[in-house]
This record gives sequence, C-alpha cells and structure tokens, in this order.
Amino acid sequence: MTERFVVVGGDAAGMSAAATARRRRSPDELEIVVFERSAHTSYAACGLPYYVGDVVGEARALVARTPEQHRAAGIDVRTRHEVLALDLERRRVRVRDLERGRETTEPFDHLCLAVGARPVRPPIPGIDASGVFGIQHLDDGIALRRVVEVQQPQRAVIVGGGYIGIEMAEALVRRGLRVCLVEALPAPMPTLDPDMGALVADALVDVGVQTYLGEPVQRFETGPDGRVRAVVTAARELPADLVVLGLGVRPDTRLAAAAGLAVGESAGIVTDERQRTSAPGVWAAGDCVETRHLVSGRPVAIALGTHANKQGRVVGIDVTGGDATFPGVLGTAVAKLCDLEVARTGLTERQATELGLVVATTTVDDRTRAGYYPGAAPIRVKLVWEEPTGRLLGAQIVGREGAAKRVDVLAACLWNRMTVDEILSLDLGYAPPFSPVWDPVLAACRVAVGRRERRGALGGTGAPTAP
Amino acid sequence: MTERFVVVGGDAAGMSAAATARRRRSPDELEIVVFERSAHTSYAACGLPYYVGDVVGEARALVARTPEQHRAAGIDVRTRHEVLALDLERRRVRVRDLERGRETTEPFDHLCLAVGARPVRPPIPGIDASGVFGIQHLDDGIALRRVVEVQQPQRAVIVGGGYIGIEMAEALVRRGLRVCLVEALPAPMPTLDPDMGALVADALVDVGVQTYLGEPVQRFETGPDGRVRAVVTAARELPADLVVLGLGVRPDTRLAAAAGLAVGESAGIVTDERQRTSAPGVWAAGDCVETRHLVSGRPVAIALGTHANKQGRVVGIDVTGGDATFPGVLGTAVAKLCDLEVARTGLTERQATELGLVVATTTVDDRTRAGYYPGAAPIRVKLVWEEPTGRLLGAQIVGREGAAKRVDVLAACLWNRMTVDEILSLDLGYAPPFSPVWDPVLAACRVAVGRRERRGALGGTGAPTAP
Repeated sequence: MTERFVVVGGDAAGMSAAATARRRRSPDELEIVVFERSAHTSYAACGLPYYVGDVVGEARALVARTPEQHRAAGIDVRTRHEVLALDLERRRVRVRDLERGRETTEPFDHLCLAVGARPVRPPIPGIDASGVFGIQHLDDGIALRRVVEVQQPQRAVIVGGGYIGIEMAEALVRRGLRVCLVEALPAPMPTLDPDMGALVADALVDVGVQTYLGEPVQRFETGPDGRVRAVVTAARELPADLVVLGLGVRPDTRLAAAAGLAVGESAGIVTDERQRTSAPGVWAAGDCVETRHLVSGRPVAIALGTHANKQGRVVGIDVTGGDATFPGVLGTAVAKLCDLEVARTGLTERQATELGLVVATTTVDDRTRAGYYPGAAPIRVKLVWEEPTGRLLGAQIVGREGAAKRVDVLAACLWNRMTVDEILSLDLGYAPPFSPVWDPVLAACRVAVGRRERRGALGGTGAPTAP
Repeated sequence: MTERFVVVGGDAAGMSAAATARRRRSPDELEIVVFERSAHTSYAACGLPYYVGDVVGEARALVARTPEQHRAAGIDVRTRHEVLALDLERRRVRVRDLERGRETTEPFDHLCLAVGARPVRPPIPGIDASGVFGIQHLDDGIALRRVVEVQQPQRAVIVGGGYIGIEMAEALVRRGLRVCLVEALPAPMPTLDPDMGALVADALVDVGVQTYLGEPVQRFETGPDGRVRAVVTAARELPADLVVLGLGVRPDTRLAAAAGLAVGESAGIVTDERQRTSAPGVWAAGDCVETRHLVSGRPVAIALGTHANKQGRVVGIDVTGGDATFPGVLGTAVAKLCDLEVARTGLTERQATELGLVVATTTVDDRTRAGYYPGAAPIRVKLVWEEPTGRLLGAQIVGREGAAKRVDVLAACLWNRMTVDEILSLDLGYAPPFSPVWDPVLAACRVAVGRRERRGALGGTGAPTAP
C-alpha cells in the first residue's frame, strides 16, 4: 500500500526531507506532497542581502530548485498552499489553496513540519507601518528591492546590528542610499563578544554606515500617508524613507503549538536527534525547531540554511526507515562586511561565563599570510577556553581575506572537545600564500598554552630533565 | 650551577628550541649556545621560490629573526660555525669556525640536533655540474636569484614535480625564462593521487610551463665550460641554461649516525614524543628527524617549517623540565600554483591501499561560494575513507580561491579519527560569499555517506518508521 508523506514548507528543510525521501522510496511506495505558502521552493534566504544589493542580479538565481524541477523528480509540490491546522489524531492537515481560496483536508501517514521562522517584531510603536521591512522570505527580498528601485528612497535605517543587519546595511549603501544602523547594545554582532564586535563597528563606519550603538529604538514615526518617516531613539530622530528590521527571527511554532506538539525553552519545536517531534510519525526540521548546543548542552534555535538542509536530510532518511541523526550545533556562523570577514563558533566569553564556567580568553592579532608574502592581511582570533582543563569553548575570528572559514577548524575541534594544548599540535596546512608558519588559529592556541604553562596547569615546571 | 644547552642548527627547529628554553630559564640557570653553519638564522625556506620569483623583493624579508635579535634575547648564536662531530660520552661537540678556520671543543649538558635536511641528489650523470641547483637553504635561494639576474639564463629545466618543483617553475616563468618541468612519474605532485595531480599538470601548462611527465632524467649534458647545457630523458634532450632539482629532501643524519644515535626506517633521526633521541640528554627536531604518521602509524620524515617550529618548541619545554609533546603528523600540505590551490592531508588512495586497508574514495566537483554569488570558483575534493567503517583516511583538494585551507578542517577530523558520517554533521560556517550551503567538504561527505547507505553499511533500510 502506498503511504503518504506530507511536508509543510517548501524551502531548505522541507525540500531536503522530500527529496531525500524521494531518492530512497519509489512513488509506488511513498507519495510525497509538499505544501508551500509562497510561489517558490528551495531558495537561498541567506542570499537576500546580495539580491537587494544587486550583487546578484536575478531573484531566480537564488532558487536552487523550482517547484517544476521538484515535480519532475516525483515530488507533488503545491505552491501557494497554506497549511492552516494539523489534526494529528486523524492524521490529516487542513490546507488553503491561496489562489482559489479553497480549503481541503489532506491525509498523511508521515508529517514533517518545516515552516521556518518569523522575523522578530517587538511591540515598538509604528513597527507595522508601511516601509518597515522584515527580511525572511524570498518575496520579502523581491519586495524590498522593488521599493529601492521604484521608489528610490534616499535614507534607510537598519534596526539591529546582527548578520542580516550588517549585510543589509552594506547592500543599501551599494544601492546609493544613506544608511544608518541602530543597535540597542553597545556593539554590533551580539553573537560576538563586544571586543570583537567593535571591529565590526569600525568596518561599518568604513563602509559608510552611520552607526548608533547602545540606542534602543523607541518608536517609528509615520507620515500622514501611513509610511514610516523616522526612527526615534532616546538620543535622536533619524529620518527614514525605508527601515529594515534585523532583530533576528523566532521559530514559527504556531501550527505545532496549536496541535499540542512540545515547544521548547528556546521557543522552537522540540525534536530528538532524528528530528522526531513529541508526536509519533511527526517530524520537524529547519528554522522552526530547537536543537542542542553541543558545548553548552542547552537547547537553542538557530535559523540557518545549513542546519535546515542537514535536518531535512535526516527526516527524509528516518521517515524511510534509514539511520541518520542531527546531533546538534556549535553556533558556527560567518558573515562578510565589505572585505571584512566575521566568524564565530561555540560559546562567547559572556555565554560561557553565564553558564558558570571558569572562563579564560586569549586574543591574538596576526596576519593571514606569511608576513613577507604580498597581501598578508590582518586577522584577530579570540579563543574562549575553560580553566583549568584547557578545553576550548568557543572562538571568534575577525579579519580580511581567508579569515572567516578558519573558524571551521576550530568548530571541528569543539565538536571533538579538544583542549587548546591538543589543538596546538594539529597538523594544519602551511605555505606562505596561505598562512604564517603558525596559522593564526595555532598562534592563538600557543599563547593560551603559554598562559597555562605559566600558571603551572601543565605541571613539570621543575628542574631541567637530567641528562 | 649554570647548565649548558647546545643547539646544532639555527633555523626553525633549533631557534624555536633555543628561544622557548630561553623564555623558561634565565641565563644564570641555563646557557644556550647555537651553532649555525650559514650566516643566517630563523629564515623561511618555504619562501625561497617567492624570493627567486621576485614576489618577495629582499632576502632579508624571509628572515624572521636575525642572529643579532636572538643574541639580544640572550641566546649565544654563533653563525658560520659548523659542528663536525658529537662526543656523547664526554658531552661535547667539535666545532669549526668557518670564518677563522679554527676548531674547538664545546661542552654541553643538553644537546639538540636541528641540522635540517639535504636535497636529494640521485647519482645521475652530470648532476653535480655547475648550473644544477638544489634549493634548501637561504643561501641556495640567494645564489639562484643572482644567477637569474646576472647571467640572465633563457631556458630552465625543473627536475621533479613536487611542491618545490612547481613553485620554482612558476617563479622562473615570472622571471621571463622558458621553463620545462620533467617528472619521472605520470603526474606531478606525487603526494596526491594521479587523478588529482592531473589538475596540477593542466595548471602548469596554463602557467606556461612545458611539462614532460613519465620521463625520468637519464643524464645532464655539460658544455666544455663544465656548466649544464641540457637535460636528457629517454624521449628527448631539453636545452637548459639552468636546472633546479625538486626531488625532495632527506633528513641530514650524518652527525647523528656517526655518534650512534638511532636512525629510523624513514631515514630520519628517531625520537619519542618529547623529541628525545636514543641517547640521554640529546634531543632532535625539525627536518632531520622522523615522526609518526597519525593515520598509518608508520614513521615518516616530512620536512616542513610548521613541524620544525612545533618540535623545537617541545624540545625547549622538555629540556627545561616542562611538559609538551609532538604526537605526530598527518602529512597536511598546501601549495599554490598561480591561482590554483593544492592541498592534501592523511593518506592518498595509493598509500592507503598499500597499507592493506579496504579503501573507498569519493570525488566531487563543487564551487567555493554559493553558485549565485559572484566569483564562485571550481574546487574538487577527493576523500579517501575506509570500508566498512567509514573512517576518513585522507583528503585532497584542488581548486581556486579558498580551496587550500579547507583541508584544515579535514585534518582536524583525521586527527580525531572521525568517520565520514560524523563529519557530515559538523557545524561548519556558511554564508554565500564563503561556501555553498553544503560546504564542498561536507558535500563530499554527503556523497560518501550516500554510498554507504546504498551498500547497507548504515543499516536500517527496511520499512518506513511506523507512525
């Protein structure tokens, strides 16, 4: 008998689940139906700032796979269909066809929720005014770019200095707008410690972004036409033809919560390592779920395409009887601001301290290539590690060319619970065009280990070894 | 009582040992004397091709620390002093002052051999002719550049297609010479598998190097002036005003062997993890030693500044009673040929097969950035892994911008004996300017894991999980 796998949401997680299941089961064995509210599938939300900034010319370039392509692969993708409710008892979902305005009930044997996240919109007066944009879906990016090109706004205010905030700031500078960025905290990039975030603040100024740090937005002023016309903080009023919110996103758990699925303390849908929710035969994946942080052990919700793809793959394998898990995340993230590269993984100093760990940090300023090799550029590496074990807890890297992806090696070290002493021995690649003889990552470990030696944490500070 | 630490060799390993010991012990506690045959200390041998190619203008830029700087730090560096013999019984070395032609005997309590490696010079007729250069020491590079600039040779032949060979080929093309490269094996870069080496062969041609693969050199023709004038293989005679040997290097074990120190099967001085030789109170570090390959478990001698620096540091700590080890190497190496980046770590397919392992390989062609992001460049990743465990055994990467240093994350995975399945879960950084949503490294793992699934190696290919 043919079983039916229903997927709610047709972006990274949902389509990965569907496509993986499709590869493992024939249509005779498993019918796969995907309901997607928008007209698009499998698009790169991370690419939206580059589309708005015209680094990428066409929105369709962001679409990895169209609905037609998925259909040709044997997946029944129904775009412009919104799932309104889940009936887990009777194994069916209520669906609205947004084109025809018609509601139907669709049965399932297996269900995957991949409904994504929603931009955070705190209850600030005026936040729902016209001209205030959240950027999450492809249609948001298309709408914003159209506004930029058609209405030709002159002044933009970005609210929030996280990844999306800084990327959108640069994008709008590229489009010729005068751009201000307002951030409630004293430094941008709250996923970094403030000392590293300060480097990003400097770069924003270099890019031409006026930054106002430590200034929470109090309200958005609107004109008589209902459109936003200014952003107001305690210190100033910033004229704005356009506002972009970069305040992060929250898992969309509306369907899940209404159906009684467990929602966790990080506000995402609770799943196990196989992406199974609290209800049998119901999986969830992507930006709507919470997962485990592998350093803190705590639940976290981190919206990122890379996790969504991996989790969707796990669902597609598990739903077809295979064996795969998503063990959790390290919070690795990289971003680019003009030619500054920003990266982080694991816990920040602040996060580690809040967890009650005994925290030490080591920060080094180094170069991305051998000092004598042309083009060597600055790179700063900050390691967060635990006293007295020396265990790495997290790392942040800010620098020029080749800085960001260096965080991957530290992510692999974190994953394996290595100490700074162990990392120091790692056999990393060396050639003058690519790094100093001690890669900056190792140079930072060397300083950390030196500090451990001086504190006697490594023992053996006695007399020279007898001949 | 002041003890005396004598170091033989003043480049990376020796000076790291001396400087580390100096930081840990005052001159009252420990006198540190370094004998160095040349006039230089702490120079970057890896930078020599860039100096010859005029990417780096001044030889002194390659010197990280001069003898004067070391002396100012409290290390008694004696350049132009050659150690002729070790007397381990009486704890002294015989030293010749090369400037004054005088020999003395110098006592030691602790001794470190850091005498480096020598270019391989097989007994090919004519190999000792004038105009045939080995490149190992700073003076070799200075001499070769002087020949290029003063004698203005037109035609160069590089013998050997390893790292030094390809870097020197590019350097001499930059200087306007017509360059041929002759390699006995069917592909350049014998540290890669031939399928990956073929990409390097193509790049050599693009750079403008005429390559002759699978052609061992039979002899060097010399003119009546005793200078080399041609390189002869079975297939052809290549006119040459200049020949550069890139046939690798061998540990210099002459002093060690004469003193009865154990020399291993890889032809390097045998040491333990603390770099202690077979004789009490005698350490060795750098290109003259053999170390353990952490994947094969076999002894290997790999001449590389990064190992030399780490091993020297271990000696400096151990000789002063501290606790540090050098666990071994993975054979990680990176190189640049014009804008092609080449990287490898662990075992090649061939090496793994020779060890009797059941080997599987996975090769993927991918892009260095999200496909829609400008500047996305090709990258090929080859994984070598073990059936049926899925354990990673090695990796090779060849590609454009950002390709090479990706090998570091796989080196960290190898170090931790991860399987391809485990690696696939790794939380690596993702943003469109830096990688596709599946980093090429993970994309390769995904293909490998897919293959394991299809073979049933991961179990659980039965019926869908019951709802």
